Amino acid sequence: MAAYDLAIRNGTVATASDVFKADIGIRDGKIAAIADVISDAAEEIDATGLLVLPGGIDSHVHIAQKQGEGIVMADDFASATASAAAGGNTMVMPFALQERGTSLRACVEEYRKLAEGNCVIDTAFHLIISDPTPEVLGQELPALLKDGYTSFKVFMTYDDLVLNDRQLLDVFDVARREGALVMVHAEGYDAIRYMTEKLERAGDTAPYYHAASRPELVEREAAHRAISHAELVDVPLMIVHVSGREAMEQIRWAQQRGLKVYGETCPQYISLTAEDLQAAQGGDAMSGAKYVCSPPPRDHESWDAIWEGIRTGVFQTFSSDHCPFRYDSTEGKLNPKGRTSFRWVPNGIPGVETRLPILFSEGVSKGRISLQRFVELSATNHARIYGLYPGKGAIAVGFDADIALWDPVRKETIRQEILHHGADYTPWEGFEVTGWPVMTIARGDVVARDGTVTGQPGRGQILERGLSEFARP
Amino acid sequence: MAAYDLAIRNGTVATASDVFKADIGIRDGKIAAIADVISDAAEEIDATGLLVLPGGIDSHVHIAQKQGEGIVMADDFASATASAAAGGNTMVMPFALQERGTSLRACVEEYRKLAEGNCVIDTAFHLIISDPTPEVLGQELPALLKDGYTSFKVFMTYDDLVLNDRQLLDVFDVARREGALVMVHAEGYDAIRYMTEKLERAGDTAPYYHAASRPELVEREAAHRAISHAELVDVPLMIVHVSGREAMEQIRWAQQRGLKVYGETCPQYISLTAEDLQAAQGGDAMSGAKYVCSPPPRDHESWDAIWEGIRTGVFQTFSSDHCPFRYDSTEGKLNPKGRTSFRWVPNGIPGVETRLPILFSEGVSKGRISLQRFVELSATNHARIYGLYPGKGAIAVGFDADIALWDPVRKETIRQEILHHGADYTPWEGFEVTGWPVMTIARGDVVARDGTVTGQPGRGQILERGLSEFARP
Amino acid sequence: MAAYDLAIRNGTVATASDVFKADIGIRDGKIAAIADVISDAAEEIDATGLLVLPGGIDSHVHIAQKQGEGIVMADDFASATASAAAGGNTMVMPFALQERGTSLRACVEEYRKLAEGNCVIDTAFHLIISDPTPEVLGQELPALLKDGYTSFKVFMTYDDLVLNDRQLLDVFDVARREGALVMVHAEGYDAIRYMTEKLERAGDTAPYYHAASRPELVEREAAHRAISHAELVDVPLMIVHVSGREAMEQIRWAQQRGLKVYGETCPQYISLTAEDLQAAQGGDAMSGAKYVCSPPPRDHESWDAIWEGIRTGVFQTFSSDHCPFRYDSTEGKLNPKGRTSFRWVPNGIPGVETRLPILFSEGVSKGRISLQRFVELSATNHARIYGLYPGKGAIAVGFDADIALWDPVRKETIRQEILHHGADYTPWEGFEVTGWPVMTIARGDVVARDGTVTGQPGRGQILERGLSEFARP
Amino acid sequence: MAAYDLAIRNGTVATASDVFKADIGIRDGKIAAIADVISDAAEEIDATGLLVLPGGIDSHVHIAQKQGEGIVMADDFASATASAAAGGNTMVMPFALQERGTSLRACVEEYRKLAEGNCVIDTAFHLIISDPTPEVLGQELPALLKDGYTSFKVFMTYDDLVLNDRQLLDVFDVARREGALVMVHAEGYDAIRYMTEKLERAGDTAPYYHAASRPELVEREAAHRAISHAELVDVPLMIVHVSGREAMEQIRWAQQRGLKVYGETCPQYISLTAEDLQAAQGGDAMSGAKYVCSPPPRDHESWDAIWEGIRTGVFQTFSSDHCPFRYDSTEGKLNPKGRTSFRWVPNGIPGVETRLPILFSEGVSKGRISLQRFVELSATNHARIYGLYPGKGAIAVGFDADIALWDPVRKETIRQEILHHGADYTPWEGFEVTGWPVMTIARGDVVARDGTVTGQPGRGQILERGLSEFARP
Repeated sequence: MAAYDLAIRNGTVATASDVFKADIGIRDGKIAAIADVISDAAEEIDATGLLVLPGGIDSHVHIAQKQGEGIVMADDFASATASAAAGGNTMVMPFALQERGTSLRACVEEYRKLAEGNCVIDTAFHLIISDPTPEVLGQELPALLKDGYTSFKVFMTYDDLVLNDRQLLDVFDVARREGALVMVHAEGYDAIRYMTEKLERAGDTAPYYHAASRPELVEREAAHRAISHAELVDVPLMIVHVSGREAMEQIRWAQQRGLKVYGETCPQYISLTAEDLQAAQGGDAMSGAKYVCSPPPRDHESWDAIWEGIRTGVFQTFSSDHCPFRYDSTEGKLNPKGRTSFRWVPNGIPGVETRLPILFSEGVSKGRISLQRFVELSATNHARIYGLYPGKGAIAVGFDADIALWDPVRKETIRQEILHHGADYTPWEGFEVTGWPVMTIARGDVVARDGTVTGQPGRGQILERGLSEFARP
Repeated sequence: MAAYDLAIRNGTVATASDVFKADIGIRDGKIAAIADVISDAAEEIDATGLLVLPGGIDSHVHIAQKQGEGIVMADDFASATASAAAGGNTMVMPFALQERGTSLRACVEEYRKLAEGNCVIDTAFHLIISDPTPEVLGQELPALLKDGYTSFKVFMTYDDLVLNDRQLLDVFDVARREGALVMVHAEGYDAIRYMTEKLERAGDTAPYYHAASRPELVEREAAHRAISHAELVDVPLMIVHVSGREAMEQIRWAQQRGLKVYGETCPQYISLTAEDLQAAQGGDAMSGAKYVCSPPPRDHESWDAIWEGIRTGVFQTFSSDHCPFRYDSTEGKLNPKGRTSFRWVPNGIPGVETRLPILFSEGVSKGRISLQRFVELSATNHARIYGLYPGKGAIAVGFDADIALWDPVRKETIRQEILHHGADYTPWEGFEVTGWPVMTIARGDVVARDGTVTGQPGRGQILERGLSEFARP
Repeated sequence: MAAYDLAIRNGTVATASDVFKADIGIRDGKIAAIADVISDAAEEIDATGLLVLPGGIDSHVHIAQKQGEGIVMADDFASATASAAAGGNTMVMPFALQERGTSLRACVEEYRKLAEGNCVIDTAFHLIISDPTPEVLGQELPALLKDGYTSFKVFMTYDDLVLNDRQLLDVFDVARREGALVMVHAEGYDAIRYMTEKLERAGDTAPYYHAASRPELVEREAAHRAISHAELVDVPLMIVHVSGREAMEQIRWAQQRGLKVYGETCPQYISLTAEDLQAAQGGDAMSGAKYVCSPPPRDHESWDAIWEGIRTGVFQTFSSDHCPFRYDSTEGKLNPKGRTSFRWVPNGIPGVETRLPILFSEGVSKGRISLQRFVELSATNHARIYGLYPGKGAIAVGFDADIALWDPVRKETIRQEILHHGADYTPWEGFEVTGWPVMTIARGDVVARDGTVTGQPGRGQILERGLSEFARP
Repeated sequence: MAAYDLAIRNGTVATASDVFKADIGIRDGKIAAIADVISDAAEEIDATGLLVLPGGIDSHVHIAQKQGEGIVMADDFASATASAAAGGNTMVMPFALQERGTSLRACVEEYRKLAEGNCVIDTAFHLIISDPTPEVLGQELPALLKDGYTSFKVFMTYDDLVLNDRQLLDVFDVARREGALVMVHAEGYDAIRYMTEKLERAGDTAPYYHAASRPELVEREAAHRAISHAELVDVPLMIVHVSGREAMEQIRWAQQRGLKVYGETCPQYISLTAEDLQAAQGGDAMSGAKYVCSPPPRDHESWDAIWEGIRTGVFQTFSSDHCPFRYDSTEGKLNPKGRTSFRWVPNGIPGVETRLPILFSEGVSKGRISLQRFVELSATNHARIYGLYPGKGAIAVGFDADIALWDPVRKETIRQEILHHGADYTPWEGFEVTGWPVMTIARGDVVARDGTVTGQPGRGQILERGLSEFARP
């Protein structure tokens, strides 16, 4: 019998700190050896000329999440995890959302059923708390934390999700007591409503005005407020999907004061702009709806600010905020109400499959970040922050054999036709990248190879997570 | 007939920019001449060795304001304006408060009745908006502005006054449209509630915990939020009674970005600390209640921060936030509920009479600020900011003859027994100052002389104000 | 006999703090009265519709200063002071320069002779120290200070003037001990040499490269260094002719730390750019030489930064740095060596006559600053900082009757033909302004009226100054 | 024949990014495998309960460096490298110093001879440039770079070493052209001289005044100046031995602007203070001399600032600045001139052996930094920054088997008697630490075990280095 089930030979391995040539030996779905030569394997993959990286972990995706009336998310667990695998990921972390007036536990169980048997790669759920009743705060949350749901997200905007400041403080308080990590969507509800109504009164209802309705200062204000609440309660905080300088500087300021405040950013904030929400001249007047997400993409100066934040360590994770809707559908971007005002265009864009190529190309290939920093931003920090470490997020002995093979010089043009998500478009249509994930191996299984998803739905597990090492007292 | 009704001879005149020796000639209650010699006056005051300064304008006082059940403010208009006059002031600006569920106009009229016939010196009212109904926003406010009520204050805390973010934005919007100046009490309601309940659960109910219930970050967060709202709406903003570095730095940051954000600070933030809220050992357990005001006094580092803000121009006005309650009274600090928790101790301290001596002594006498800056902080800027300029706030031809004579070297110890307010104590008991206002002249009348109030209630007028020159587009 | 020699009637008077309608009564060259009506004067000037402002003090001009071989400054005291008077100024402050290897006292006396009998308006000299020998530091400087030369300037660049760090520290030390104010030209000598040689090696010798040879960071570094030295020695410091954000931010940072660091800026930094140093296409290849001054003008973003510094109080004075050379002259910009490299183009531009109209127009007329701030920046602060206060810099009783009448709505186009300086061009040819000084009155004499200089050379005095009130311990 | 020469079994491996349990297999002095089980080795070390870390690289040590008359450094290469090995290091980087007036190449060769045959562990030399003649800049430096001396250090202070600004710029220019990394000792020479003479004039000559003679602002100014020069030239820069907030903030500011500016700090700046330079009461008046190094240790607030810099990524490396002198020796701290003034006390303290235990204990054991960050600060970044990567600085396949085994819970008290350096004292006498290096393995050889140095002098190699990956364009 061979010593290893699988060997990845002759590649260049990168971790979040090191780059070196080595073979990888896999046994029972785990990395058993990293060595100069591994010859005794049942199967071999030749990685000559390729990078051998930890599989991406996308800690911010929305899958099959309940929407308001008539709107349907374009991905179920099968399609979303297949798309993720094709994009070099070995794990995704969607959100189990509490609907107001219902039990959080029941929502989680119901959501879990959607995932069971359908995931191509591993998943684990964050919780979204929209109704922090005493029952939820006092009993459900502590119990769910014990069951491995160790992070939860709160929203400072959206009609159905927004928490007021007191609710935020109460949720933060539970997190502090239980050691959970809080993620926050930082945009100010009232300010957005104010702007939205003002724009609508002026007849400015096209998708483009979505960006105008939530300027950067709205995000900055909410970031500052969330940081202040976290400081008051003394709890760590992750501010997700930061879009530009204003919120970035708030996070940096907090970090320099010694607060445990972390930041996440996304591809849309280094490669799209508010101009994308403009309809092309003479074209489809609603086409800007394809780019409607929150916070909205900003401008080129914001890209620079985000890179500055990446470079100087303000941001720990780079996620997709994958939130897919079909464009040409009454259940998606072109729902009847959406045509009347940007306010009703579902917020979100698909991106789980394109996140890593965009970061690799714009970051590594263009010399903005090192390969190690790419690994850190795309995998290792996700695992460390969300309680999956050790075990996930690194090429290290004893860790899950979650690996992506990258061709660092392959040029590719992103097109809808090569993607595997449930949406009918990609915001990055025509976007050219250098560097491409050519094979994804999850727990030792080849789940995607050269654009074909080979992993079966159901092989992915739903994981219990430990407490975040960033949130530990 | 003499050319002038009154001459002030041989003094050293100071304005917000200049200091020079001159005589002042007054005619019909106005300054008619500033000259090397004015000999042709019906009456003369010899100001040899004295400073001749614009009378103080205290743009932040609370007088006879309605309180919750059982609590009574210690000053009516007669006592408050007498106290102000004795302290070198020639004008005060109290707040006409809208009670929720009532017409703002009606509240103003009712409040005005309390003032009419009772004021020793001139007054003008700010408005407090606690219930910004469409009626208030759309009709009452514009009409009141036309009647000269050109500034209004909003609160971000207090059960009966707090506005939510949307209400703040709506009020700001009216202000922008009408050219009014918004003043904001910046402390976060929900954060204070959260802290208060936490302290009460822990049994920490003594007056001292008032300070712990509203740490500086609560003030900073609210300041940031208010600034962001003002930036969104594009409206000038005055943040009142700033207590320390955190809020100061927010204002400075806004100013450097080019926003029209202004700041006010008060004597308590350069001369009292949270330690004053501690009961003296072996003494009266409730004595800290005498110092309960909001924001609470901080510490010595905060004093330094406030001076830095004064020195570098972050603050434009120095006011008292006079808000007097009797200490030893069931209608004041020692009301029955107040004894059960700091939460029920009325917030506020008396200070209209001591404001100027404290600023003069700590500022001018100790070499921290120039005499010109004293004039600017105590009078000129109040007039310019609140629409009283030209006419008030300066020693200039054609302006009201509102003048205070100061003995810059006189040493005095502040004691309750020498004050004229309605409170039964002063937080500055025993505080030693150098520099003292020895005579106050309002519209040419001597209204206070050497500690005796000589002006009659009713001589003061209630003024209509113009738009703020700081708020003009 | 009339009570006053001269009355200025019906104008609007502005000081650095106040604006009001009043008549001014002048007696014996001093302001004797400011009053509602002054009817009893030997002469009257009707200022209806005009502003009555303190005459400008230009605390940074170079007149008849010794230059290197073959170069001659374009103004002597007669022409420079006439030009200043025509531009609304009543006082200028040139520099008495020590030549290396010579006695400072002798240089001062020699320079003084050039001024005596030739000045149209008052002057007072700063000292430039280029050779701080023990004799100079220990004896000459203290003696000259006692004689009223209470400010001195040091250079961190220029072959003949640059002091090394130790020399700077020694000069600062004398200033601290004697209460003098140090002015510093902050650009780093070695960095400029390095850049100059690099550019010359590359053949980049046109006037345009003057700007490239001294980028903003060179100014910033020197500003930081000078501030650090001042902090070490504990001495006040005035950083002159600040050109943009980088140095401005250093000064602001110092001020916020509580250091007595002051800043001056000039018209060229809010109205010219480095592009002006480019030769016009198809035009005179050397024409950029007309704009060669140090620091060089920057760009539009720098204008914004300078205005930010003006607005937030970082800068106390606005001077011309008048340093005139003829353009079309072998003794000026087009000297033979200057044609071979920017390095040999004399540094400096004429501006004493245009300083105030540019600041008035760009500042007051365009709504960036108040009239009071104009007075402060153009006159009052110069007097206060350089030991001329009280007496100069304000419209106040007992002060010199140094007054400029301005027509605030008069539109004018700056052209060489209307100016009175000795240069043969103005960098602002064709620049349009709103607001113009129509009459200048110095010590009660009309010295300029509607573009004609009426004051005689010799009427201006050379003043002894007191210690700076900004430098007093 | 066994597959491996040596196996390290059952330990917990840490890299700069990951922590995991694994065995390490070593062959031919290199890491050949990292695996779950390595059983086929000629020798085994049981690391149960121990951490298996990359051996420390100390990129800032001074060994056998030439001193002024009469002073002798306390370590030769044999003792220094033995001491380093005992302290968990597998490599040190001393400085080959150019003496003024001599050839740099000759100095290097001479210095190299001192090392050859004497080193217990590997070394590589930085160059110190004290005399940047055209010959040195144009020929020697480029040639030495080609020979693998890829970093050089310049001094902004010290009589025999200080370069003026132009020399700094010229050296930076060569570095930019050749891809070298510049290290700078940032303290301002003239400012120190000024302070030193002032203190000496006042009779303040005890060792304690060493700290007063070089306050933080002197370090800050030099840091700012060096950064500005690097910005002008466009070259990366490493600012070494940063002592507190002031210089740290300059580096952070530069990094946020996108400049390639790096920072190093040392144990003395998180564990000693200026008070240590005070003689103990009633004790040896010169004892403070033991702590004389430059920059001097500061205070507890500075420790916090340094930790903030470590935590937020301002600092990349943590070195010892080992610079050993005997205390009780006329060739060391107590040389005859040193007794007359702090100015003559040799600057430097021994620390190569204690660097890592102090960082581990104060950082990892006290929860301030993660184990991964410890590895990064102590080894990996040194290798990456100084051109030793790949090959050194990580536990990675193909890298040198440079490994330290740490007992993370072992408590130890630092005492002179357990150290191996040539000095006769340690500044950390009595300092208690948790965590201790119990075995050091260099290129597969056990060179230190439990306080005994087992490696032979001469086994260490002198390495040629590649270009810094931080300095690459």
